Amino acid sequence: MPLDDLGEFDLIARIVGRLGDAAARDIAVPPGDDAAAWAVGPGLAVATVDALVEGTHWRRDTMSLGDVGWRAIATAVSDLAAMGAAASYVLIAAELGPGLTPEDLDDFADGVAASCRCHGVRVAGGNVAAARATSFTTTAFGSAAADGVTDAAADPDATAQAVLRRDAACPGDAVAVSGTPGAAAAGLALIEAALIEGGAASEDAAPLLAAHRRPRARLALGRAALAAGARCAIDLSDGLLQDLGHVARASNVGIEIEAALLPLHHAAVALLGPARALALALGGGEDYELALTAPAATLDALAAHEPPEAPLTRIGRVVAEHRGEVVARDAAGQVVQPSIAGWDQLHSPTQ
Amino acid sequence: MPLDDLGEFDLIARIVGRLGDAAARDIAVPPGDDAAAWAVGPGLAVATVDALVEGTHWRRDTMSLGDVGWRAIATAVSDLAAMGAAASYVLIAAELGPGLTPEDLDDFADGVAASCRCHGVRVAGGNVAAARATSFTTTAFGSAAADGVTDAAADPDATAQAVLRRDAACPGDAVAVSGTPGAAAAGLALIEAALIEGGAASEDAAPLLAAHRRPRARLALGRAALAAGARCAIDLSDGLLQDLGHVARASNVGIEIEAALLPLHHAAVALLGPARALALALGGGEDYELALTAPAATLDALAAHEPPEAPLTRIGRVVAEHRGEVVARDAAGQVVQPSIAGWDQLHSPTQ
Repeated sequence: MPLDDLGEFDLIARIVGRLGDAAARDIAVPPGDDAAAWAVGPGLAVATVDALVEGTHWRRDTMSLGDVGWRAIATAVSDLAAMGAAASYVLIAAELGPGLTPEDLDDFADGVAASCRCHGVRVAGGNVAAARATSFTTTAFGSAAADGVTDAAADPDATAQAVLRRDAACPGDAVAVSGTPGAAAAGLALIEAALIEGGAASEDAAPLLAAHRRPRARLALGRAALAAGARCAIDLSDGLLQDLGHVARASNVGIEIEAALLPLHHAAVALLGPARALALALGGGEDYELALTAPAATLDALAAHEPPEAPLTRIGRVVAEHRGEVVARDAAGQVVQPSIAGWDQLHSPTQ
Repeated sequence: MPLDDLGEFDLIARIVGRLGDAAARDIAVPPGDDAAAWAVGPGLAVATVDALVEGTHWRRDTMSLGDVGWRAIATAVSDLAAMGAAASYVLIAAELGPGLTPEDLDDFADGVAASCRCHGVRVAGGNVAAARATSFTTTAFGSAAADGVTDAAADPDATAQAVLRRDAACPGDAVAVSGTPGAAAAGLALIEAALIEGGAASEDAAPLLAAHRRPRARLALGRAALAAGARCAIDLSDGLLQDLGHVARASNVGIEIEAALLPLHHAAVALLGPARALALALGGGEDYELALTAPAATLDALAAHEPPEAPLTRIGRVVAEHRGEVVARDAAGQVVQPSIAGWDQLHSPTQ
């Protein structure tokens, strides 16, 4: 059935119904009015928006609409994780391109619902519009406790305690990452290789494919890091070197990475070789892991308590030299030149 | 200069710079981090998302990118007006299609900034992504005072006092609209007619063109209506009959409109004739005026205090009959059949 046999409002009702308990039906104004409303206590509102555009961020031959739904939640919520915020609600704006069917949107809604349950958020509202290309834009809302914070100008110190920021790295900090950076990019590389060869990716690739299609935002880690005293984080969406570059410039510090310490995924090394696995770890995007900077003791204490699905690994340090720059070195101390440029939303990925 | 000569991050810096004081630089976490954060007091968070898609909601030959920027704010904020909420911040997600230039985005940012100043909101963050088609998705955030509201299940009465809802119309209420419904659709009709004829719309059409290109969300009216004791509102985005239909179904009431009472714009009547002006008032969308239902005395008291740019006019009443249906009657009591279907986001507008 083509999508426009359903009217706009029947389609919205169908999607909200499909979401089940992932739709926030018990908030003050649930989905269905001009806007959603929910009760908040005093503190900081934390909000972010992210888009998944067909052809730019996903293709129908590399992931299902269910995967897109999962990622629509995970990628937005990941920005809240990087702030150390608690995540609560999302709004989803769907632009529906030609060829989408109601069943496609059922799949999308199922993926959204599963991801919402995984990440502890619910859908409070959204928007649908016909378009010449399909995309899903998710706004994620969260909160942070902030005793006495009114705004940054009034009390920057109080704000500094309330969230993780990318401009809070200090020379002397250690740098750590969660999980296995490059796994998502390795998954995509294997999916694309299998498409070219006409077969399916090998079973050994399954965890890498999942890293690409069903990433998990590190909300618990972000909050634990803030509680442990960390002040600086970023999520790995554009690629490790590029994301740490954002930290280096925002904090006006240098960052040094020891390539040998990078926790490569064993399947990426086995299937793509160590050189390619390293390149993807440095330059491949969309991991949605967290990079943190903090005193080494803070990171070590945090690592000791982290759940095993996203172990924290120290990979380098923050320095007062080469401010604004990230340098990765191999075991011999030689600078590793990145072979993959990292994501730029105005250019195609180079992988 | 093509857009991708600028990198993603230079482009974002350029847009934020262009926004001037419309960018929220003094909040706890201003634009530039993974997420934005601002201080909130206890109460209700009110949030909505709306998309303006090229080809669906606007075309380059009917409005400038500056107009699109204005509307990107106005249309989202209008949903907060319809809740009686105070508007505070917006996030803008831009999908940048082929052919856009940095200068186009400068124009867009100028329109956003002007609309933000007009509506008393600021940009707290956003997202940019390359896409095959251009669209701008705006999330608007506001708040409502809500003593003791935790959630709807816990205290529906407290919630009912806190916001205007579309499910709160009661038989016996009067129905009123602000401004001159149909003016925006009349403006678009005149723009399209001038395009076909190869000329420009007449000077008399200027207020109608402005209604289409630079609509003003009725934030002050929404808040005043709530304070005056109104409980039910909707904004006119899909067309008067269709939007009142949402109210009728959500509230399980009937609504009767007297067509002779509709405040048609004099320029629409003069340039398009009274029959077409009436049809556009009933079925043309995108006015971003408010429709309210409340006891007649409440609406009359509110009308007496409204600013002259958006006078409030009583146009009908809420009844216990024909629940879920809106009926418009002419002066002879005959039912007026709408000749324009109203907006459905999955279908092209019929005008």
